[in-house]
Amino acid sequence: MENRICKLFNIKYPIISGGMVWCSGWRLASAVSRCGGLGLLGAGSMHPDNLRYHIRMCRENLGELPFGVNVPLMYPQIEQLMQILVEEQVKIVFTSAGSPKKWTPYLKEHGITVCHVVSSALFAEKCEQAGVDSIVAEGFEAGGHNGREETTTLCLIPRVRQATSLPLIAAGGIALKCQIEAVKALGAEGVQIGTRFALSQESSAHRSFKEHCINLGEGDTRLLLKKISPTRLACGSLFTETVEKMENEGATKEALQLYLGKGRAKKGIFEGEIDEGEIEIGQSASLINSIESVEQIMESLI
Amino acid sequence: MENRICKLFNIKYPIISGGMVWCSGWRLASAVSRCGGLGLLGAGSMHPDNLRYHIRMCRENLGELPFGVNVPLMYPQIEQLMQILVEEQVKIVFTSAGSPKKWTPYLKEHGITVCHVVSSALFAEKCEQAGVDSIVAEGFEAGGHNGREETTTLCLIPRVRQATSLPLIAAGGIALKCQIEAVKALGAEGVQIGTRFALSQESSAHRSFKEHCINLGEGDTRLLLKKISPTRLACGSLFTETVEKMENEGATKEALQLYLGKGRAKKGIFEGEIDEGEIEIGQSASLINSIESVEQIMESLI
Repeated sequence: MENRICKLFNIKYPIISGGMVWCSGWRLASAVSRCGGLGLLGAGSMHPDNLRYHIRMCRENLGELPFGVNVPLMYPQIEQLMQILVEEQVKIVFTSAGSPKKWTPYLKEHGITVCHVVSSALFAEKCEQAGVDSIVAEGFEAGGHNGREETTTLCLIPRVRQATSLPLIAAGGIALKCQIEAVKALGAEGVQIGTRFALSQESSAHRSFKEHCINLGEGDTRLLLKKISPTRLACGSLFTETVEKMENEGATKEALQLYLGKGRAKKGIFEGEIDEGEIEIGQSASLINSIESVEQIMESLI
Repeated sequence: MENRICKLFNIKYPIISGGMVWCSGWRLASAVSRCGGLGLLGAGSMHPDNLRYHIRMCRENLGELPFGVNVPLMYPQIEQLMQILVEEQVKIVFTSAGSPKKWTPYLKEHGITVCHVVSSALFAEKCEQAGVDSIVAEGFEAGGHNGREETTTLCLIPRVRQATSLPLIAAGGIALKCQIEAVKALGAEGVQIGTRFALSQESSAHRSFKEHCINLGEGDTRLLLKKISPTRLACGSLFTETVEKMENEGATKEALQLYLGKGRAKKGIFEGEIDEGEIEIGQSASLINSIESVEQIMESLI
């Protein structure tokens, strides 16, 4: 499976675990990297000092093995975060939820390999102009925050492949080996897997969150909150059902924002409060039926 | 490419053109079958007598080459339609939009090969129980009427493959050769292609419809009318925009039904009235940039 993605990140298999809020701490990231993939920390749900701790724990556990950090660019203390990445000599950064223009030059100046997450070929072209080293193209199937285009991975990857010659990682809906083969046929050179790793033993998510999600069936996730920022949520939660009902009845952005409030993702994912929290998970949850170790997952994928 | 689908339908390539309303007449179906695929007539938009005419024209053009008919099971004069299929000795019928239980035994008794369209593994299992010969599993990307689960082709095919051992045809979002390779990796043995054939020279759709659709970009289709029956429509049409606005404002099913009225699909697809009609098309429209002949399309796929 040696290819451009493997060479870029110095990994054995082109399999990356997404840097997911409240899931991707040092335990998950280290486990994936130890198995020959690339583990990412999810900075989006970490206070800057906490991120520093997780980076150090990764290094302690991994030695010279690579790992990376996912940074959502709308992070409030983004300057402080970027400084920590440089101070701690992080080698690989995945940026998302924002324009790659502003921070790519800074990261590149500090010798950091930059990968940006996009949901369209249009944004992939902007990434190439901004000088990123590789691209994650993520489809409609993905859990949590999602592109406005609603383009599925099957339609997105060939379109992005036409638009750029950069190393290309597919994301959204990928949980099985056959799906890795499928996106490779579409032109991807690697995969970023979220949902399946979010539901692994090493994920920091609450046990109740994992158990709720492995029991989801077909059609049991919804892309909601489109008036704020499209987010894929699991059914069977009072929060999800309330949002869906409000939206069906034409709730305004303001009304939705008021109901959403703050801290719902932490409540749902980290504290396991299924009814009160946001249960962010991808469509591929219906393909996953048990809480496995990262080692078991990696073995089934390669 | 010889496999179970080829053997079942006695075709050279496991490529089927969807039986699309106002697109799939004898010209399109015959052209696909002549190129070694399986062309389907779309009975959904034909009066019974008109269907008889199209069947006879297919036979006249194809001789012993196979073709099929797609029948939406909510068709108002369904008894009359089924009688015509038997009288005209149609050999292959694709049923959709209804339960396969009621009509499969009747069709099988008359020696007809039956294929049913599903949007979930749950319905695939019901198909197997009903005795169908093969299954089309169609994902969220597909144009026009769509499943309620919103499961994408990438997530749907592996799930259906686990649920049934019947010959399996993938549909939804497939327009390119690399996508055929991708769904084969997922376990499909054949593909049903709608959008790309709907925009072919031989499609009965209006020139204005085809031109509108080949100019669609990323994110330019929407799954709307979920309160009635989820339908994928093209942007850039007053009808689509009005429905979207009404839905954002919480319009009821009744209000939507009143605005929808009757005959919108004919107006949009067959009469080319972009603003007044339903422009039913799949997400893969953004991968198609010209109006090609069926021969050109088939050559690019095999």
